[in-house]
Amino acid sequence: MSRGLFISLEGIDGVGKSTQSDLIEQYLLGLGRKVVRTLEPGGTELGQEIRHLLLHRKGDVAPRSEALLYAADRAHHVATKVRPALSRGEVVITDRYLDSSVAYQGVGRDLNAEDVRAISMFAVENLLPDLTILLDLEASAAMARRKKSGAEPDRLEREKVEFFEAVRQAYLAMAAAEPARWLVVDATQTVEQMQQQIRQRIDQVLASF
Amino acid sequence: MSRGLFISLEGIDGVGKSTQSDLIEQYLLGLGRKVVRTLEPGGTELGQEIRHLLLHRKGDVAPRSEALLYAADRAHHVATKVRPALSRGEVVITDRYLDSSVAYQGVGRDLNAEDVRAISMFAVENLLPDLTILLDLEASAAMARRKKSGAEPDRLEREKVEFFEAVRQAYLAMAAAEPARWLVVDATQTVEQMQQQIRQRIDQVLASF
Repeated sequence: MSRGLFISLEGIDGVGKSTQSDLIEQYLLGLGRKVVRTLEPGGTELGQEIRHLLLHRKGDVAPRSEALLYAADRAHHVATKVRPALSRGEVVITDRYLDSSVAYQGVGRDLNAEDVRAISMFAVENLLPDLTILLDLEASAAMARRKKSGAEPDRLEREKVEFFEAVRQAYLAMAAAEPARWLVVDATQTVEQMQQQIRQRIDQVLASF
Repeated sequence: MSRGLFISLEGIDGVGKSTQSDLIEQYLLGLGRKVVRTLEPGGTELGQEIRHLLLHRKGDVAPRSEALLYAADRAHHVATKVRPALSRGEVVITDRYLDSSVAYQGVGRDLNAEDVRAISMFAVENLLPDLTILLDLEASAAMARRKKSGAEPDRLEREKVEFFEAVRQAYLAMAAAEPARWLVVDATQTVEQMQQQIRQRIDQVLASF
């Protein structure tokens, strides 16, 4: 039986995580692997309920409570879906994992990034991905892709750009601090170029097992 | 304006926390204080929803997820209800607080008690009560009070007694480690004897402010 392979995709919205996940799945299916696609938050039924709680009450949840709800979602997700699949030797591809919490909550909610990371590490019993792929793009470019409009940004949008640019920088700092786990992919490249770079790295990870 | 006073009551079910809370409230109202009575889990609207999630899915929630959901309830409770009342100079009396999590989850769920405590301390930004009152009673006696029946316990009930006795011992160890915050009250005494002991200690705490 193969050893399980755990891959997470990270990056701000609009950088192309879904497209690259689809292509990674195809590649690994072609290698004869079973693949589980999942996401955070909301990768389980309980997680959907927690996500509903968070979205339904947006802005009304105390920041530390919000961080703990995301961690609760993650704990259940890992215990009931990710770990069982890995122990069956399957591949798990998750759209966002704990690095999302560190990047977004650390920047956005004035929480200490180390605290947020410690809570997530408790949640997942220290399970880190074999490979974390950061699709990196300037926040202004990512927002333009999402909007697909050429209009000039208004004040609120410029504030959003600043927030997402700070998240992007947080991601880049994490990737630089832990290069053995992270692959940074320049998302101004074509889909095919990005995927080629990702497949090379997946091959390296599999060869190292 | 008075400085706020934060009191938590702890102990296994059946030791008489509600009765003593009522009498503490009366005493402090008599001293001219405003009093907020509250509880965990479920002291806020969001907390009620989290509590519903936990009870509705009992046994189906991964242990670490459960611990994080309790902490999320606590974070919101403290940020939106406890701290605001304390900063208005009021008295907050809570039926259970973070020591409940350490005692129950540490014993029951095979989680590390220090981890559980650390998560709660993040949740509440290190807010500890001025006084934590442990109503202490042997688990078998507490269970008998709750059942109000003289029937011999069956196997399941004996297992429950063992669990609650372990929780009781966890409480006693915490109280011994931090005597400046804790008051241990022997709950085999009469209601009046217990309350007298508690009022003496409250007077001491107020005099120390």
